Amino acid sequence: METSRVTNQYLEDNLETEFKCLDHGFVRVVDYMGDESSIVQAARVSYGTGTKSVSEDKNLIRYLLRQGHSTPFEMVEIKFHMKLPIFVARQFIRHRMASVNEYSARYSILDKEFYIPKLQDIQPQSTDNKQGRSGELTEKQANEVKEILLENSNNAYWKYEVLLGEKKGDSKFSYHEDYNNTFYDEKFPGIAREMARMVLPVNYYTQWYWKVDGNNLLKMLKLRNDKHAQKEIRVYAEAMTEILSGWMPNVFDAWVDYMAESYTLSKQMIEALRKYMTVEDFEDELKSHKDISKREKEELINLLKGN
Amino acid sequence: METSRVTNQYLEDNLETEFKCLDHGFVRVVDYMGDESSIVQAARVSYGTGTKSVSEDKNLIRYLLRQGHSTPFEMVEIKFHMKLPIFVARQFIRHRMASVNEYSARYSILDKEFYIPKLQDIQPQSTDNKQGRSGELTEKQANEVKEILLENSNNAYWKYEVLLGEKKGDSKFSYHEDYNNTFYDEKFPGIAREMARMVLPVNYYTQWYWKVDGNNLLKMLKLRNDKHAQKEIRVYAEAMTEILSGWMPNVFDAWVDYMAESYTLSKQMIEALRKYMTVEDFEDELKSHKDISKREKEELINLLKGN
Amino acid sequence: METSRVTNQYLEDNLETEFKCLDHGFVRVVDYMGDESSIVQAARVSYGTGTKSVSEDKNLIRYLLRQGHSTPFEMVEIKFHMKLPIFVARQFIRHRMASVNEYSARYSILDKEFYIPKLQDIQPQSTDNKQGRSGELTEKQANEVKEILLENSNNAYWKYEVLLGEKKGDSKFSYHEDYNNTFYDEKFPGIAREMARMVLPVNYYTQWYWKVDGNNLLKMLKLRNDKHAQKEIRVYAEAMTEILSGWMPNVFDAWVDYMAESYTLSKQMIEALRKYMTVEDFEDELKSHKDISKREKEELINLLKGN
Amino acid sequence: METSRVTNQYLEDNLETEFKCLDHGFVRVVDYMGDESSIVQAARVSYGTGTKSVSEDKNLIRYLLRQGHSTPFEMVEIKFHMKLPIFVARQFIRHRMASVNEYSARYSILDKEFYIPKLQDIQPQSTDNKQGRSGELTEKQANEVKEILLENSNNAYWKYEVLLGEKKGDSKFSYHEDYNNTFYDEKFPGIAREMARMVLPVNYYTQWYWKVDGNNLLKMLKLRNDKHAQKEIRVYAEAMTEILSGWMPNVFDAWVDYMAESYTLSKQMIEALRKYMTVEDFEDELKSHKDISKREKEELINLLKGN
Repeated sequence: METSRVTNQYLEDNLETEFKCLDHGFVRVVDYMGDESSIVQAARVSYGTGTKSVSEDKNLIRYLLRQGHSTPFEMVEIKFHMKLPIFVARQFIRHRMASVNEYSARYSILDKEFYIPKLQDIQPQSTDNKQGRSGELTEKQANEVKEILLENSNNAYWKYEVLLGEKKGDSKFSYHEDYNNTFYDEKFPGIAREMARMVLPVNYYTQWYWKVDGNNLLKMLKLRNDKHAQKEIRVYAEAMTEILSGWMPNVFDAWVDYMAESYTLSKQMIEALRKYMTVEDFEDELKSHKDISKREKEELINLLKGN
Repeated sequence: METSRVTNQYLEDNLETEFKCLDHGFVRVVDYMGDESSIVQAARVSYGTGTKSVSEDKNLIRYLLRQGHSTPFEMVEIKFHMKLPIFVARQFIRHRMASVNEYSARYSILDKEFYIPKLQDIQPQSTDNKQGRSGELTEKQANEVKEILLENSNNAYWKYEVLLGEKKGDSKFSYHEDYNNTFYDEKFPGIAREMARMVLPVNYYTQWYWKVDGNNLLKMLKLRNDKHAQKEIRVYAEAMTEILSGWMPNVFDAWVDYMAESYTLSKQMIEALRKYMTVEDFEDELKSHKDISKREKEELINLLKGN
Repeated sequence: METSRVTNQYLEDNLETEFKCLDHGFVRVVDYMGDESSIVQAARVSYGTGTKSVSEDKNLIRYLLRQGHSTPFEMVEIKFHMKLPIFVARQFIRHRMASVNEYSARYSILDKEFYIPKLQDIQPQSTDNKQGRSGELTEKQANEVKEILLENSNNAYWKYEVLLGEKKGDSKFSYHEDYNNTFYDEKFPGIAREMARMVLPVNYYTQWYWKVDGNNLLKMLKLRNDKHAQKEIRVYAEAMTEILSGWMPNVFDAWVDYMAESYTLSKQMIEALRKYMTVEDFEDELKSHKDISKREKEELINLLKGN
Repeated sequence: METSRVTNQYLEDNLETEFKCLDHGFVRVVDYMGDESSIVQAARVSYGTGTKSVSEDKNLIRYLLRQGHSTPFEMVEIKFHMKLPIFVARQFIRHRMASVNEYSARYSILDKEFYIPKLQDIQPQSTDNKQGRSGELTEKQANEVKEILLENSNNAYWKYEVLLGEKKGDSKFSYHEDYNNTFYDEKFPGIAREMARMVLPVNYYTQWYWKVDGNNLLKMLKLRNDKHAQKEIRVYAEAMTEILSGWMPNVFDAWVDYMAESYTLSKQMIEALRKYMTVEDFEDELKSHKDISKREKEELINLLKGN
């Protein structure tokens, strides 16, 4: 189709591409609005200055992100189709400034698709990180864990179908036989979908449309690419970060430099640095760093001088 | 403690009261800010009028709710501690204008508490409502469903503990024995909590603090008391509605009259009513309805007259 | 440009069209994402049903809007460039679920553009509506008011420029001469833009980019097309409603029927109708109303029967 | 009144205290919910650990703020009554996650109260900061500016009253006489309040109730205490920061250390520091800094080592 809107070649080439995540999940761009020129355009409305060169646009984007001027980044939107395990969806949904339409298990029957981690991702509880995992299992142990997860997932789906009245018999588990004997004697009609789904564990896949603006995307990606985020959601954040880098490369670079790989010094850390450093020497060191702008160098030097 | 803040006797009497929901869940008020006098106070700032009588306050509240002047209702807050099944939590969380701190299964081990419906709540899929249930099962069928749900829940928790490395052996299921044989031969350390929880089905209970302002509470309660809402979330909405009625009785009454039990006529329905009715006769009928204000009667009559 | 995204011919034809508002204002579509097919698509993810016919799409949209299923409407976005008086901007900004980048009077000098109402819009305070206007002035009075507004606006801008250090002399007001004498004796550098703008009255025009999703657009348009909204913001709402009707005609129709021209009966009004009506007769009347769906007729009849 | 809620002595002592801002403005706490114990309580629900000592509470708060775990801070609320110039209100309102009820100039007549800066605050446009002021005027110039602001404000209010039909004659300006002659010949009824207010400049005071949760308060205070914020809004931010420090001293301290007086190093700055520093020496320096936690020291050292 012909459009007069801002068009982004990378996204056009990748609409419909499934960026695979985990064993059965994916992230796919369904629609988008704008690109980094839209951010620049909005910023220039606020600041009242006209169109500028490409390098000035790049610097403006870096300046905006660095200074926390977040509203121009709200001027772009992206809509994803995602397939993801319920426990990952439960983490994503905490980012409230997004729009979501999720597949409803009240209306429809969920597919038999569940997440089973790769052997190397099955790890013991971390001892120093209360919310993480680290170390490794023996291969035999990891395989046994995988077997339990598989059996649990299959078994739950078997019951799901039995409860929906859609499954008749044959199972390797004797208690499955028992259900069949019970129900199919008496023309069991199945129970409501909204109830039957209660047996499904949180590693089952759900799907949704998830739409977000650029500002909220960047904040989410910072949090969910973090090493403290659960590995499974990080996989989705990585796929979305790849999409970001193709869509808005200068925004991506600025995000890496000022958000993802930045570090916030506390007031006390700044004081410790001030005591330790000879600012003049550091000023010399900075001269060779062409990738730091003049304004940023001045700011950092002033900080260390205590100005 | 002594406070100069607006204090509400009903909530003071009920702080810490667990309003029971389903088999193991509850809603409990932890804290609150303001009561209906706060709503009136905020509305009077906007409209610049001074303090008024109690009956005028009540009418102002009714007027605000009826006219959709929602911002004064944002001026009160309530914070609940809730215990609720994961699938219910997944519905609640769609109300984005609330603040939530949920028990984290990455940090902690979930208790063995799960929701099993009462026999009479176990119903077939509704045939005319794609998202609901209706009709009934035989008692034998309902009991069998309950058995499946129980077995599924217990079984999943058994595996959860096995995966956490906390369970040694003995089970009535032969495959459970197999796990034990495998793992406990070789000092299985358990896997990370964030992974082990993947086996738990969505009828397991979670807990959270859930805080909301008055406006968003009223909107949520309308949606979740609705007959289209799933019965299990309705139980929570009903408990919260009871709390609302004790906390702010005039707001509750206005909510019943203008939101919960109101009905929105479409433009076409209005036209049909206009054709059918003799407005003068209806005007007579209205005279005996003392519970409709003069202003509302005029408005309704004008609507039917097509003014 | 070529795009694989959903494209809307009406908006493509009207990108860059200035929909004039008031004397100098406008609304202009800068960008958009999706159209009503996007709403249908999102709803079908939730409800798990496949692509359907055009008439089913239309009915689905009507159903969603009627039932308050608002999330699918969030799946479309529109971005406007607007020029509007400050007092109107102050009303718009209360719709918090929008993204805004406004022209900043700290960075830039505002243009000399201000809103002067047409003679017929200059009206006395309404006596029965505390927030409105009604009745009329004599032509002479209206002209005098206009003169005051003009003089005030011009005078303020004169001072604005004087304060910015950009204006030298000549004015019909003697005190203007005095300023010049004072300042230009002594090389007055002008004061900061962020201070100088304090003299400007709220009928001065500002500009912004204002971006919103479909759901929040519909809610805003309902409130701001209402007869209780100030006439000046209504003019903007009307322009945006025209754009809506071209962009998503079925959504517009549903919005008219179920939001803009609907009427919400209170519980007490329903009771009064029940007493007055012979439901069977009304059921007959309804038969001839082909524009009310079967489902809606049943619902209304059940309501009136008290089922 | 007696309450079982969390009560904060500082706020109890200061409910109703007007913290003066600018010449006629103020910030006053009207109501609040919770204090820092509420934040700790919510965090402990998420992380599943029990009540701890006071010093552990303080460290938990610092940890939460440092790590960007913002949701527990949403669990407290504060409601302010504020009087502030319109141009300051226009900046505040950009913080969308707050609830607002503003005095309406459609319903009521604004008081004759306007902001006139102190002489030393009347400054030229900054040459290196496009959005700021710096340098100074001569006393004579500053006095003249003040005169213009005063005259503009008085003059506008004079017209406001004339337009409202409330002012009869006598003025030092000849055109004022003209208005009177015109209007009072012919029983001018005044124009609607919503129109008359159009003549008022943005330095006029408005009032509102402004309610916000702790998380959004901290973010707003960071932005509005910043040296790039306009001085007039900074005055309000400072008053609110004082209130914060009395209400939740540990949160205030953490906010100073990790937000207000922190500094975010870009990826490139980190690289420059790595090149410059001898990490072992800096590790020695850090030993004497008792106010930096062990965990933070390790983190910083690891960062500088490039681990």
